[in-house]
Amino acid sequence: MTKPSVIAFDADDTLWVNEPIFNEVEDKFAKLLLHYTSEETLKKKLFDTEIKNLHIFGYGVKGFMLSMIETAIELTNGQITGDEIHKIISWGKDMLQHPVHLLDGIEETLKELHGDYKLMIITKGDLFDQESKIARSGLADYFDHIEIVSEKDEKTYQQILDKYNIAKEEFLMIGNSAKSDVLPLINIGSQAIHIPYHTTWEHEKVDEAQKAKLPYIEISEIKQIFNYLNK
Amino acid sequence: MTKPSVIAFDADDTLWVNEPIFNEVEDKFAKLLLHYTSEETLKKKLFDTEIKNLHIFGYGVKGFMLSMIETAIELTNGQITGDEIHKIISWGKDMLQHPVHLLDGIEETLKELHGDYKLMIITKGDLFDQESKIARSGLADYFDHIEIVSEKDEKTYQQILDKYNIAKEEFLMIGNSAKSDVLPLINIGSQAIHIPYHTTWEHEKVDEAQKAKLPYIEISEIKQIFNYLNK
Repeated sequence: MTKPSVIAFDADDTLWVNEPIFNEVEDKFAKLLLHYTSEETLKKKLFDTEIKNLHIFGYGVKGFMLSMIETAIELTNGQITGDEIHKIISWGKDMLQHPVHLLDGIEETLKELHGDYKLMIITKGDLFDQESKIARSGLADYFDHIEIVSEKDEKTYQQILDKYNIAKEEFLMIGNSAKSDVLPLINIGSQAIHIPYHTTWEHEKVDEAQKAKLPYIEISEIKQIFNYLNK
Repeated sequence: MTKPSVIAFDADDTLWVNEPIFNEVEDKFAKLLLHYTSEETLKKKLFDTEIKNLHIFGYGVKGFMLSMIETAIELTNGQITGDEIHKIISWGKDMLQHPVHLLDGIEETLKELHGDYKLMIITKGDLFDQESKIARSGLADYFDHIEIVSEKDEKTYQQILDKYNIAKEEFLMIGNSAKSDVLPLINIGSQAIHIPYHTTWEHEKVDEAQKAKLPYIEISEIKQIFNYLNK
């Protein structure tokens, strides 16, 4: 293995808690509409609406809010009240201002890596929301570059490597999504470490058999990256 | 005047039509709710809601959609129907997929500048929406760098100059908003050309007396920049 010179981190559910905040709101959403439809139907319909809207809204909380509202109107045949929709908007606003909870060991790890490696954040989603979370996390000063992108695929990663003139072999990406943070990197000849989080959005899940064949390592907590780096 | 080496363009209402698309939807929104409240009250309330939400949503169509929905619920005391809210969501989705209409002379101007200057787009707003518009505009290949930012202030421009190692005197920004595309540039010692568009969002308006004192030029059509550049 080539020693990496640049280490990039995903943000949501890699540096800080994210998916549980969505799950919590989904539960409240299901409860709000329980007198119209079952929780299972509602969550299935919400997921389908999110995926259908992804090419128009992109990732992020605002698109999620709009998809919840659309789902609620459709599943209730327009019977949902203005007050109920107002609740959905309030939950979304709370999500956008939610305190940022760092995951275990993140700050210590960044402190130790800082100076020895160039550090980056590469995160997808809503520009304004992600910038706000980075600012509120207090971690911004550890990073040399921050890239907020609309999609994490091979093309995006290649553009980032070109932009900063980084040799692909010397680039290591760390994140919780095998689909976004691992597979595209392996495909372009870079390094990747998967650090699964206890909950993953359905859309980010990948075929386990496909994963098993690929040359990357998986760790269960962030501090284990030093075992990899010091090899 | 130092000859600029880098020319950056704002996008919305500088390269292509934008504000009229918002105005058209605002008119439809007012008409939809005319049996609840007057057009004037509604537009005033919508603007206030947008400004109130700016620090949570940032700029862009999705935030505008959510502010319309919130305004509609509040102004109708929750009486707005699901079907009416569904209409608002459809208008927003249409906005996000609206054909990109280039302004007069843009493509010819970019073609002529391309090669002689480094060209950039610096636009604020929703990452996903702006990327999509840039792709649909067919102009992407004229630009060396594209920066989608959450706010256009002195700090943002300074960061861009630092990132690309551009001397501030050699940087020229061109755009339709005196507030976002001119004033911060003059304040950091760069050059700016104002090319007003026939309609400007209330939030982007600046005090005319303040503007009059500043050292920048105003042109009425894009091709006039060659008079400035060839001086």
